Amino acid sequence: MQIYLGIDFGGTNVKTGIFDEDMNLLSKTSAPAGVEMEPEDIVANIVKTAKLLIADSGHQLADVAAIGIGTPGPADYLNGIIIKASNLPTFHNTPLRDMIADGLGKPAVLENDANVACWGEFIAGAGKDITDMIFFTLGTGIGGGIVSSGRLVQGCDGNGAELGHLIIYPDGRQCGCGQEGCVEAYASASSTARRAAEQLDNNPDSSLAQVKEQNGEVTCKDVFEQAEAGDVFANEIVDGTAKALAILCVNMLHTTEPEKIVFSGGMIAAGQILLDRIRNHFDRQVWKLKKETVEICFATLSEDTGITGAAALAKYELGTN
Amino acid sequence: MQIYLGIDFGGTNVKTGIFDEDMNLLSKTSAPAGVEMEPEDIVANIVKTAKLLIADSGHQLADVAAIGIGTPGPADYLNGIIIKASNLPTFHNTPLRDMIADGLGKPAVLENDANVACWGEFIAGAGKDITDMIFFTLGTGIGGGIVSSGRLVQGCDGNGAELGHLIIYPDGRQCGCGQEGCVEAYASASSTARRAAEQLDNNPDSSLAQVKEQNGEVTCKDVFEQAEAGDVFANEIVDGTAKALAILCVNMLHTTEPEKIVFSGGMIAAGQILLDRIRNHFDRQVWKLKKETVEICFATLSEDTGITGAAALAKYELGTN
Repeated sequence: MQIYLGIDFGGTNVKTGIFDEDMNLLSKTSAPAGVEMEPEDIVANIVKTAKLLIADSGHQLADVAAIGIGTPGPADYLNGIIIKASNLPTFHNTPLRDMIADGLGKPAVLENDANVACWGEFIAGAGKDITDMIFFTLGTGIGGGIVSSGRLVQGCDGNGAELGHLIIYPDGRQCGCGQEGCVEAYASASSTARRAAEQLDNNPDSSLAQVKEQNGEVTCKDVFEQAEAGDVFANEIVDGTAKALAILCVNMLHTTEPEKIVFSGGMIAAGQILLDRIRNHFDRQVWKLKKETVEICFATLSEDTGITGAAALAKYELGTN
Repeated sequence: MQIYLGIDFGGTNVKTGIFDEDMNLLSKTSAPAGVEMEPEDIVANIVKTAKLLIADSGHQLADVAAIGIGTPGPADYLNGIIIKASNLPTFHNTPLRDMIADGLGKPAVLENDANVACWGEFIAGAGKDITDMIFFTLGTGIGGGIVSSGRLVQGCDGNGAELGHLIIYPDGRQCGCGQEGCVEAYASASSTARRAAEQLDNNPDSSLAQVKEQNGEVTCKDVFEQAEAGDVFANEIVDGTAKALAILCVNMLHTTEPEKIVFSGGMIAAGQILLDRIRNHFDRQVWKLKKETVEICFATLSEDTGITGAAALAKYELGTN
């Protein structure tokens, strides 16, 4: 039986998983990324960990059909090279894909982490019965993924679907990417918290002011909690986030026309209030030329989306089936 | 030799063309759409015209492999049905695709006119050597088309790539589609003329004021001409159009990451000033995380884009090669 290896490079940890051909998880592990180490040593650790994991799952290296690797973008995904990356400071034009492929003697594919998670969700999660899907991760930033007619949209050099960087408020808030007015600058978890913090002095009666006094800061989670508890200012901030995401949904509807728009990432812990507000703004913003039946929902895979997607992408691109 | 029939439903005319397998135009004609006529009579005219054209090209009906038809959206393209269309007022849930297919006894495909033109430009025009392209038509409205990894993006029910209706200025100008702040409400030829006309009273020294006095109105062509002649106000209007289109380009870059972004339609008669201004705003607006090499250019096919694309799409979807 063939198995697939999925590797997910996060900000602080590298997760590795072994999957069978049907993308059932056989074994997994998570280890500190060791981001200050040299690339050769990081890769040596990954190779060592992968071999232990393969043995642990009752398999041999010979059973591995292919390896999928997800990393934050942008990168030279076509050639499998990390040019530079904020979460891997020692990497400079580092051929990560080929280093791991050589280390294990197996073919590998390197892909943007949001695209990888999107593909995992499409194969094994909310998208498994459809052909057209848009996927967002809401965390420190906003990542995106697109599946169109059953195919992952990767773009001409592998940096497609950077959907957090669609400009929705021209000349608006500064984004970390250098653009102004990106949806990420309004609606990521960090941007939501930041917008609240910036305006708190003008809203001293908000319950968020007490939160800040107690904790020294305001998080995105605080904003959603106080909104649910009825705080007016917190509700305004949540509404700003929901409106930005709704406009992003309208724009993606008019681009690849998905059946489902799937949200994932830390912010979806906010629950139904987030989906309801997005849908509300979506219905208000979208055209009336035809009734739009697109479903806006949460991802269904757990914390294993990254490794599942990486393994599934390895099978999709390099598998023999 | 097999031939393909391309039919392009415009606002006032129906164009029909016969193409060989390599999409060389063998014969073409244009006739009034007869938009007030009943659907049956319109289709009967099309069938009659097509038969004459096939004979005129030295072929027989038996040589026709398939028929492609382009119409303005939205429609039920999956099932080939015009639900309602502003340019075809007598059509209500009219199965146009099957009516034409039955009339000629050949398989047919119905597709959005901008997607059809996009496919024509991809197969035979500016996109013929690439795999990832974005296409815009700048006319009364703004149409869009997407080719991703060599495939036309049609969306889950055939209404994808309505790129003129991406919202770029939330709560902005009213668009004919019912949304607010669509790029079409700023940067189509009609919207460009309208923005100039609306602000003309506040700019009585503009040379456009004289144009209006002479002609009774201001057209998009006037705006570009006076901008080139150095009029400050006309340049502001042109800049607003270029900026809106540049933001649309940035947003599409971050969506399907094209190698080329191709503009077509009446407005491109404005020439280099239009491309230069769009590029200028694009370079200012786009992120700095990586150098973007996307080419922004004009379409190269002439007025035959619609029929070429329809015939090429018929071959793509229904052809035997």
